[in-house]
Amino acid sequence: RIHKVAVLAGDGIGKEVMPEGIRAVEAAARRFGIGIEWASFDWPSCDYYQAHGKMMPDDWKEQLAGFDALFFGAVGWPETVPDHISLWGSLLKFRRQFDQYINLRPVRLLPGVPCPLANKQPGDIDMVIVRENTEGEYSSVGGRMFEGTEREFVLQEAVFTRTGVDRALKFAFELAQKRPKKHLTSATKSNGISISMPYWDERVEAIGADYPEVRHDKYHIDILAARFVLSPERFDVVVASNLFGDILSDLGPACAGTIGIAPSANLNPERGFPSLFEPVHGSAPDIYGKNIANPIAMIWCGAMMLDFLGHREAHDAIVAAVERCLVDGPRTPDLGGTADTTAVGQAIAAMI
Amino acid sequence: RIHKVAVLAGDGIGKEVMPEGIRAVEAAARRFGIGIEWASFDWPSCDYYQAHGKMMPDDWKEQLAGFDALFFGAVGWPETVPDHISLWGSLLKFRRQFDQYINLRPVRLLPGVPCPLANKQPGDIDMVIVRENTEGEYSSVGGRMFEGTEREFVLQEAVFTRTGVDRALKFAFELAQKRPKKHLTSATKSNGISISMPYWDERVEAIGADYPEVRHDKYHIDILAARFVLSPERFDVVVASNLFGDILSDLGPACAGTIGIAPSANLNPERGFPSLFEPVHGSAPDIYGKNIANPIAMIWCGAMMLDFLGHREAHDAIVAAVERCLVDGPRTPDLGGTADTTAVGQAIAAMI
Ligand SMILES: CC(C)[C@H](C(=O)O)[C@@H](O)C(=O)O
Ligand SMILES: CC(C)[C@H](C(=O)O)[C@@H](O)C(=O)O
Repeated sequence: RIHKVAVLAGDGIGKEVMPEGIRAVEAAARRFGIGIEWASFDWPSCDYYQAHGKMMPDDWKEQLAGFDALFFGAVGWPETVPDHISLWGSLLKFRRQFDQYINLRPVRLLPGVPCPLANKQPGDIDMVIVRENTEGEYSSVGGRMFEGTEREFVLQEAVFTRTGVDRALKFAFELAQKRPKKHLTSATKSNGISISMPYWDERVEAIGADYPEVRHDKYHIDILAARFVLSPERFDVVVASNLFGDILSDLGPACAGTIGIAPSANLNPERGFPSLFEPVHGSAPDIYGKNIANPIAMIWCGAMMLDFLGHREAHDAIVAAVERCLVDGPRTPDLGGTADTTAVGQAIAAMI
Repeated sequence: RIHKVAVLAGDGIGKEVMPEGIRAVEAAARRFGIGIEWASFDWPSCDYYQAHGKMMPDDWKEQLAGFDALFFGAVGWPETVPDHISLWGSLLKFRRQFDQYINLRPVRLLPGVPCPLANKQPGDIDMVIVRENTEGEYSSVGGRMFEGTEREFVLQEAVFTRTGVDRALKFAFELAQKRPKKHLTSATKSNGISISMPYWDERVEAIGADYPEVRHDKYHIDILAARFVLSPERFDVVVASNLFGDILSDLGPACAGTIGIAPSANLNPERGFPSLFEPVHGSAPDIYGKNIANPIAMIWCGAMMLDFLGHREAHDAIVAAVERCLVDGPRTPDLGGTADTTAVGQAIAAMI
């Protein structure tokens, strides 16, 4: 059957890397006989906001709900629209309204990518971060009292539901069970945050009991962040709340030197709603317009998307091409090369 | 006048490093003619808990309130007392009840200390992390509903008061103003956490307006954690909420290779209550009893304590001795040496 994919290029370099993401997916689709139907949208974007006073049309949900996947570039143009407006008006809406409750980020130390850590070899870092993506510390519940006076204070709720926590943990344990090391690490802070985090720990024990083959441990987020720098090789699957997952999934790629090329997937595993695939790098206004952005994150997102759509071999072919390109070039300036976005995208498509 | 210092060695290696901390402070006191009166307590500790069912006597506050400083080893012995009991029953009580609203951690890349980051030289990392230490995400407000059912959920409040936020920010700006770079970085997450963090940003702007000489910027905590690994040299003073400060002040020392020797100060800058000085390393049950713990964190805490008590030159003398010892030895096993705790402590005291 034909997969329907919505193309949401968004802002800044999102618009530059998107064609290369599509090119790679098309190449893999041709090779493996996969049918894909693309549909492009000029929203969400800050240009759209400037014209319409909102990031997306009111019927965005109806328009997008029928797609199998959302191929997403980047949103954000702080010069004209503050980040909290552009993001809460798009990405965070998708995550909640399409119940994309898993944010998945593979973190690997790859040949050809300079690593900021001393004495680490390719292969030493190979983990997946599973982040709860709809609730937790990211909540819009709370408020301010005594505004403008000395007694002013703000309350911000974190919301952890049994449903939300358990399904994220189950996903992570399932994933760990499929990997050779069968090791899951849970990020917590139950020694300091005394209500939500002990609850998180409790659910990890409860769900973990159903996965006796998976060895699981927990680290407080402070020491876990330190461990990512000191001994990243000890992690396999790392599961975390929305905020902790956000932190770890930037820190992990930073330790592997891949923050510029890292992909991420926002998944609704039940497939009742479309899942969303986006590079970690964002819209990067500082380099937009020069066609020098590295398209690898977008291309890698394409691989994750094909994997989610059931085409593991197409995923592997794209990742293999990306790995070869990282070693042999061509390279964009961020990796010390002189090639432009298009040249790297074309080279990878040719390798696929 | 004579400074009254309470000695709270606590558990595990806290008991082993404490004598060396005292030895160093005494050496500096002799050299600079400073009067110190020590008083030792066998609480808070997990031994005390085992005997009395609590970490401290009920009148702990009266007993300790008259001291100028608390010299604190480490608390925690998870084999007999869960961490959240031992810590909420001691350290976190001190922070709140003695209004130690600043947690201060210097982070420096020092000669003689192996750095986990590639291509960094001593001097490249030189920052101070200022953490709000009494409120924010560490709150005991919240609860659980629909317990034991599928609808179960937990709410956890984060509490940010004008008083609490402003005084931490003022302390950080004052400190930045005294340092050569006059640069302050604020940790935030206002693009995701939509009530408390925009408030934090707002107060940074308000307080920052009173310090026109200090250049200030802000980073979201995810990318800030990544930046600590990728370009730690760009930070000078970093100010953060309780949780973000907790994470950054383990991550920073990890990046500088100093997590085993890092000191921290819990300050009540108004001096209405005693301030507390503690090594970052904790009680380390795994190495307790062998007298191989590195006493440098405790000794460095002694330096911070003397600084806070008004003796900058004594602080500098201790830190200079520590730096010399890191380069010339003797070294404990964690730094590749064979010396024991006492030998390192004696060597540093002799250098002072
Ligand atoms: C032990 C724990 C509660 C504590 C904290 O999170 O504050 C510790 O990590 C610290 O940084 O002093
Ligand atoms: C832009 C921001 C709201 C977002 C998040 O914190 O979730 C981003 O950091 C991410 O990780 O996708």
